[in-house]
Amino acid sequence: MSTVVSFDASKRKNRSDALNELTALVQDDLHAVNEVILQRMQSPVALIPQLAGHLIAAGGKRLRPVLTLAAARLCGYDGARHRKLAACVEFIHTATLLHDDVVDDSNLRRGEPAANTLFGNKPTVLVGDFLFSRAFQLMTEDGSLDVLRILSNASAIIAEGEVLQITTTNDIRTSEQAYLEVIRAKTAELFAAACRIGAVVANRPSPEEEALRTFGLNLGLAFQMIDDVLDYSAEQARLGKSIGDDFREGKITLPVILAYNRGGEAERFFWRRTLEDLEQQDGDLEKAIDLLTKSQALKDAADRAKHYGAIARDALGLFPEHPIKSALLSVVDFTLEREY
Amino acid sequence: MSTVVSFDASKRKNRSDALNELTALVQDDLHAVNEVILQRMQSPVALIPQLAGHLIAAGGKRLRPVLTLAAARLCGYDGARHRKLAACVEFIHTATLLHDDVVDDSNLRRGEPAANTLFGNKPTVLVGDFLFSRAFQLMTEDGSLDVLRILSNASAIIAEGEVLQITTTNDIRTSEQAYLEVIRAKTAELFAAACRIGAVVANRPSPEEEALRTFGLNLGLAFQMIDDVLDYSAEQARLGKSIGDDFREGKITLPVILAYNRGGEAERFFWRRTLEDLEQQDGDLEKAIDLLTKSQALKDAADRAKHYGAIARDALGLFPEHPIKSALLSVVDFTLEREY
Repeated sequence: MSTVVSFDASKRKNRSDALNELTALVQDDLHAVNEVILQRMQSPVALIPQLAGHLIAAGGKRLRPVLTLAAARLCGYDGARHRKLAACVEFIHTATLLHDDVVDDSNLRRGEPAANTLFGNKPTVLVGDFLFSRAFQLMTEDGSLDVLRILSNASAIIAEGEVLQITTTNDIRTSEQAYLEVIRAKTAELFAAACRIGAVVANRPSPEEEALRTFGLNLGLAFQMIDDVLDYSAEQARLGKSIGDDFREGKITLPVILAYNRGGEAERFFWRRTLEDLEQQDGDLEKAIDLLTKSQALKDAADRAKHYGAIARDALGLFPEHPIKSALLSVVDFTLEREY
Repeated sequence: MSTVVSFDASKRKNRSDALNELTALVQDDLHAVNEVILQRMQSPVALIPQLAGHLIAAGGKRLRPVLTLAAARLCGYDGARHRKLAACVEFIHTATLLHDDVVDDSNLRRGEPAANTLFGNKPTVLVGDFLFSRAFQLMTEDGSLDVLRILSNASAIIAEGEVLQITTTNDIRTSEQAYLEVIRAKTAELFAAACRIGAVVANRPSPEEEALRTFGLNLGLAFQMIDDVLDYSAEQARLGKSIGDDFREGKITLPVILAYNRGGEAERFFWRRTLEDLEQQDGDLEKAIDLLTKSQALKDAADRAKHYGAIARDALGLFPEHPIKSALLSVVDFTLEREY
């Protein structure tokens, strides 16, 4: 089970399709989660649902809550507690997105103006706090100290990761290890927690909880790495997707780290100018993509992601055959197969 | 017991002295709390203790954790759980201060540059998130769902209050009721929670928990109202304290609400110009103080505070004589007696 994927060109599925299949398997639960989300983001202070709704209702993929729902069902859980907890996970995720948007410059999120550009920094921060508090209220209502421990730990780690990222932003000499630590903290730990609490509500023994944690953590790492590759993908651009956000912000991601390490003086100068000094001109993004392609940095970054994907796949080996297991494996596969 | 204070001019004590007396009674506990705070604000990410320390180590009065310690001891608690929980309360308070500082303009806090002006908005927000998460980790370690419920509710209410305040800032027609709701949410609910969890760790019956909640809530209201009065106090200015912060920011506090309601057209124009339009010139603060004094707004706002002080005092009637009870009553008295 340690092989990952053999690219089958006849498959026209992509990551979104695989996610949709998984989502379809927990459709009823997800509707209930959306109800909880809409209900619990309400407040007598009208600006709160207004601002939160800008992001929450805008309908992300609900990937993290879907993972919680799927993990619980995979563990044979047949109750309803996981719905409230899936909503917690989404609230925590949304709170971190809102706080992540608080920057000095205006910004976009999912192609839309970020909340802070529409509502200002301060309301954005405070509504994030509200959602975060609401998540802990929901967890407390559920009453599982294990869940509280898992999600409060994840929240602290996310905040640490975000701060760590600030201190590495625009430093082109960021090590691959430092990059890994940032994406683990910022992205993968919440994936891990989301999956793990599925086993906790199902009251499964520790090995299954650990297996789901392993699955989530490594899926999260692979997911983020591929996202970072796709931001430089000519193929994505060809498909009409917006690319180059990381480049414009000077974010130091794995492809760039690899290209810098492999580059000569002129190339390193280019990366310093564009990503450290943020002195960018027309054609620089194209040149960046060219350097990343020639140095194999994009391909190798995607290969690194496959390593984590393989770990995620293997983690599910503990579970018997189940439609949800197959769908989760598909999510791993199609996360990694996407073209770049 | 419903009378409040008779001002005794011979007493040279003030609010700080009364707080110091209370603090002295829980000195050992407070040292332990400071240890927990210093230990648990650490992180491998150096910027976190650096930024958090700017505010935490700068040594506020630790009023809220002292209330938790005092309430627990008043309830006869002789364990150590309250120390960790007092640290939680301080972390939540600090997180809200950090987030409160995130504004578009530079700002001061306790006469020092606010964290965001030194470190930027984003790290300030994220370190707030870290402290907030850390607070929930500490609570989870303690394991009381009652405490978790109380503090997650308080946190959600604080965030709601902060958002509500944004929507009322610079609106001179803010009602006294809206003002009350804001200070209750922003200040008094955390005071209430801090006191209440003292009874919870001591495992006291509900009436004592409710009495301490009542005490904390009403002390918090009185405390904030008096703070709002003192910001216009000529006497404070004479003592070398900085005043006029609320005026410069256009914060609509009780004294101003009363003065506006009582004023004629010219006075209302003055308040609109200075607080709504923030068009301020030399001499405006002095004129504001003059209007607030002539209209009795300062005196009456302080009288309103006495009402809440009286409720706080009465709430302690349930408890037998105890040095901590006397010290808490002194805090109420000297909060209200301070000159303005």
